[in-house]
Amino acid sequence: MFERLRGTRDFLPHEMAARKKVFSSIKKTVEEFGFFETDTPAIELFDLYSIKSGEEIIEELYAFQDKGGRMICLRPELTPSVVRLLVSRAKELSFPVKWYSIPRLWRYERPQSGRLREFYQLNIDIFGSEDPKADTEVISCAIKLLCDLGFDKSDIEVRISDRRLLQEFLLTLGITNFHEVLRAIDKREKISSDDFRLMLYNANLDDCQIKKIEEFLDSKGNFLTTLEALSKQYMGESISIVINSLLKIAQNLTDRGYEGFITFDPSIVRGLDYYTGMVFEVHDRKREFRALFGGGRYDNLAELFGGEHIPAVGFGMGDAVLELMMRRKNIWPEEKLELDIFIATIGNVDTEVSRLSTVLRNNGFTVDFDIMNRNLSNQIKFASKLGAKFLLIVGERDLKEGIVTIRDLDSGKESKILLNEVISSPSKYLTKVL
Amino acid sequence: MFERLRGTRDFLPHEMAARKKVFSSIKKTVEEFGFFETDTPAIELFDLYSIKSGEEIIEELYAFQDKGGRMICLRPELTPSVVRLLVSRAKELSFPVKWYSIPRLWRYERPQSGRLREFYQLNIDIFGSEDPKADTEVISCAIKLLCDLGFDKSDIEVRISDRRLLQEFLLTLGITNFHEVLRAIDKREKISSDDFRLMLYNANLDDCQIKKIEEFLDSKGNFLTTLEALSKQYMGESISIVINSLLKIAQNLTDRGYEGFITFDPSIVRGLDYYTGMVFEVHDRKREFRALFGGGRYDNLAELFGGEHIPAVGFGMGDAVLELMMRRKNIWPEEKLELDIFIATIGNVDTEVSRLSTVLRNNGFTVDFDIMNRNLSNQIKFASKLGAKFLLIVGERDLKEGIVTIRDLDSGKESKILLNEVISSPSKYLTKVL
Repeated sequence: MFERLRGTRDFLPHEMAARKKVFSSIKKTVEEFGFFETDTPAIELFDLYSIKSGEEIIEELYAFQDKGGRMICLRPELTPSVVRLLVSRAKELSFPVKWYSIPRLWRYERPQSGRLREFYQLNIDIFGSEDPKADTEVISCAIKLLCDLGFDKSDIEVRISDRRLLQEFLLTLGITNFHEVLRAIDKREKISSDDFRLMLYNANLDDCQIKKIEEFLDSKGNFLTTLEALSKQYMGESISIVINSLLKIAQNLTDRGYEGFITFDPSIVRGLDYYTGMVFEVHDRKREFRALFGGGRYDNLAELFGGEHIPAVGFGMGDAVLELMMRRKNIWPEEKLELDIFIATIGNVDTEVSRLSTVLRNNGFTVDFDIMNRNLSNQIKFASKLGAKFLLIVGERDLKEGIVTIRDLDSGKESKILLNEVISSPSKYLTKVL
Repeated sequence: MFERLRGTRDFLPHEMAARKKVFSSIKKTVEEFGFFETDTPAIELFDLYSIKSGEEIIEELYAFQDKGGRMICLRPELTPSVVRLLVSRAKELSFPVKWYSIPRLWRYERPQSGRLREFYQLNIDIFGSEDPKADTEVISCAIKLLCDLGFDKSDIEVRISDRRLLQEFLLTLGITNFHEVLRAIDKREKISSDDFRLMLYNANLDDCQIKKIEEFLDSKGNFLTTLEALSKQYMGESISIVINSLLKIAQNLTDRGYEGFITFDPSIVRGLDYYTGMVFEVHDRKREFRALFGGGRYDNLAELFGGEHIPAVGFGMGDAVLELMMRRKNIWPEEKLELDIFIATIGNVDTEVSRLSTVLRNNGFTVDFDIMNRNLSNQIKFASKLGAKFLLIVGERDLKEGIVTIRDLDSGKESKILLNEVISSPSKYLTKVL
């Protein structure tokens, strides 16, 4: 027997039915926000992903030579592909563009809870606007799609910061080796405070600098209050631009009624190298799981890929942690099949079943019937396994009088109707009966 | 600038919108036939695909070692993956199962019209029934989904045969080296008749045998008539079982009103090695394109993969030829964006727009608004590029009287309404106005 590869998944129809409900809820919300779906290849040139993705991602890349000798890879995230598409066809586009996609992605990492080698990830991005309103649209869409799935502010925390804020703060302390220091800050939640300090010592920071950084990182709290306090404390021009932009985001999220979801948290950095401004992460409040997702501004990537300067903001949300969180809250949809009508048969009624099923299907009903020559009782058992709502019983004897039986499989109620009436106007007739 | 890989495709939102209509029409039809969606990984063990797929497919495989040293591949077709899933979880299933999926597949071949390195392919399969009714369900579903996309019997020909029929016929001629002879027959339409004969000579056939094979292959025509004639001509028991099963399929398709699509054509073989019975191909009648798709019975694959004996019948339809054929007939959907409402703004009305957009989206409308600080005229231009049906104009001055303007972008008709009324019950109010 063949096994599937570790870290990959199969979905049987009943499992898929639940997942389809989740994905279609997500798509609905995202489309209500005015995002349009795009699609790009799953295989790309290796260089597209080696140039700017985080180190971790490159280490986990499924990369190989194709039969033409090109070094290619399975995409480990979507952003470089989408920016490639954007740059290559920018001349056709009217900016700003709001795009989404739910690609399958691959990363060779150790499979564990919430972490797979093959997974799906919703990506939404706005390209072409520097306005904090674009940031707010992206964050609001993240919150709204979680609400539409059944979460509320007691489940979810959106932690927002701005990379420039931290950098400007580090500058006021005379620190310029951002890369090392940001890496330590990004890791802070996953390591002990001693290890954190050690990382900063190794980056040549002194006790006083470390203490101030820790104070700053701990200054999270109510978004608006904290930001206003910060804005008074640090009056430098460049830092106040950043703070003003964050204040606008905060105000706009409050206008939309989302303030209860938001925490201003200067410790948020995000691992990916390409972020340039606002960054955010979404967590379950109990912190049982890894970050549900994260995103932010990456205004320089289009230029880096050979295009014009096109500001960008977006996020990516994987399906694995989402499913864990929904199952924990018991809001993962029930895993069951659904079918409108099963036609059960007695005797040789093949011709009538062919005609009846064709007519019912042409009218938009989902229809199945026996192809195993089973007896009626086994057909009915099978129909309920398919989640059939209604049973149409077509019997040789009844047919002599032109009659079939319809049964509601939930209530058990049944009635006899004329086959010709069902065939001549099934929607009207079935609606009346049902 | 980065290029995408040859033979792969990008889709911008307007292109994607058309494709989504096509795919959702296909899914609707397939679900009306009682097929349920499954999902399997895009990466699989190399062995799963080397064991039984056709030679051509193995040559074109994207195969490589993963970081754990396993030889893996990108799936070039779906059937082996689906059968792997079926076998591994057969105990949970109530047979027969009717499954579909629209996987992305990869084959390293020379990109040309209708042939890509990365493409989508609808797969439907029925597992667990040997009854010709299962074959008919699969063939009917193929015909119906093409009809629902806008094709009719003047566009499409479904050519049906049975591998056993040809094999039994070859036996009556004393021919037993099926593999070589079937390969020649499978290639017949793509090569000259001299080359065809040469292939048969090389397979040790004599002139008389070759002549009889050619006569047999040319005996296609009206399905029922031809089959009945054949049934009288060849009275051997094993061949008459095959012919009876084809006659049942023919009768059932006729009952459903699909006889005009069908040709009985004994020259149909299908390249894939695993077919065991009925095989079919779908072509455009003018033969401008490669086969649109093909399928058939493969009753032994589950056993070969270590499972029980599970009879199977299904087909796979790639998206590339389908798109070419739809474009040729001008039934490919228009490539355009669609949006319900664009909110245009005059002056500083950020708070109202935040609230209004939130309420409209919560009511299921797709909504966008200006995030570029453009003037009204440019906002309206942008709205029509998004395919907006309605414009809601929110101006600082009007707002003092609590008023906004709604404009139908098709007709140009506009009227003023109270913002509060829109906010308190947007669906009702907008439906009334619109």
